[in-house]
Amino acid sequence: MILHDFLPSGNGYKIRLLCACLGLNVTLKEYDITKGETHTESFLAINPNGKIPVLELDNGQCLSESNAILLYLTEQNHLTQQHQSALLPADPILKARVYQWLFWEQYSHEPNIASPRFWLTHNAMTDLKKRMLPDRIQQGHVALKLMDDTLAQHTFLVGDAMTLADICLFPYTHVAEEGGAYQLSEYPNIQRWIKQIEALDWFIPITQG
Amino acid sequence: MILHDFLPSGNGYKIRLLCACLGLNVTLKEYDITKGETHTESFLAINPNGKIPVLELDNGQCLSESNAILLYLTEQNHLTQQHQSALLPADPILKARVYQWLFWEQYSHEPNIASPRFWLTHNAMTDLKKRMLPDRIQQGHVALKLMDDTLAQHTFLVGDAMTLADICLFPYTHVAEEGGAYQLSEYPNIQRWIKQIEALDWFIPITQG
Repeated sequence: MILHDFLPSGNGYKIRLLCACLGLNVTLKEYDITKGETHTESFLAINPNGKIPVLELDNGQCLSESNAILLYLTEQNHLTQQHQSALLPADPILKARVYQWLFWEQYSHEPNIASPRFWLTHNAMTDLKKRMLPDRIQQGHVALKLMDDTLAQHTFLVGDAMTLADICLFPYTHVAEEGGAYQLSEYPNIQRWIKQIEALDWFIPITQG
Repeated sequence: MILHDFLPSGNGYKIRLLCACLGLNVTLKEYDITKGETHTESFLAINPNGKIPVLELDNGQCLSESNAILLYLTEQNHLTQQHQSALLPADPILKARVYQWLFWEQYSHEPNIASPRFWLTHNAMTDLKKRMLPDRIQQGHVALKLMDDTLAQHTFLVGDAMTLADICLFPYTHVAEEGGAYQLSEYPNIQRWIKQIEALDWFIPITQG
């Protein structure tokens, strides 16, 4: 499999982290999204939406949308998992809670945590974005508080075992401070959760391809 | 089951449409989101995120995030389906394509199609939203074009059979013109698709509880 990716991307890191967790080999092909490299004709042929990550399967088919790729890879490789965690629980309600976090991440977390980080660290600020920033940061604090309150109740987002919800939410949460919009010291349960994930034996950092 | 909902909401309509498709009975409990009725203490107890739709199961457990509810209900009721369509295909790649559209809807479609409709039809426009509107509309056209190009290739979004991707994308797409931000006459394949879904024998309109 080839992962078409941009190393600083949390969306791409979700897939790299899951592959590390599942012991899957994936070849990285990097693109600089700040230089329009995902809007070329050849890239649009693998994803008409012009965004990384794209997972190119061995048969040449290409999948996009990071959280869709997470679900696909987990469903395909669940039996090969070498550790105890059940990333996608068999219990229908717990599984629905994983789905909840994955959709919540795209609507309520990513635009408020990841986008400001990108604007602030990649010289992508515009007048309009400057005006949008206070609202985004306010919504980002609502999102972080919801995670922190949840992580006060149990070890991981869906219970005391790690699931795909944690793999999905870890990437942009653990770098939320980059750019200066957030201070994670306000969220002690998130800080504890980050340390627990970073201590897992298969853990890889966002900078690792 | 009880569906906590707001009738004009496309996110709520997704669930109502799926229940009609699967022949599931659900009792509607309505809230006026324009009057803060989803931010009361009693509502936050069923969804700390303060948003409809929420599906309350017969055992009292509550599920949020419209697309998570779609996946849950389909997985739980797939065998009771009385018609030919396979809403969540067994083929792993086709299933992943359904996931793709569901996540794409939350990130690339809903904020650009549904939010402007809400701002323009519910007297929710602010100075900042006015400044954000041109960007949103531009992105909304990108989203509608991607759907139209896809629907030029096959009858429904994932192939020639209807899937959960169509149930998910139909609600906000078919009312995209409300508020005046979009003209669907620019997208003939979307118009054909809307007519085909509206002609299905189990179809119910957005105004029906």
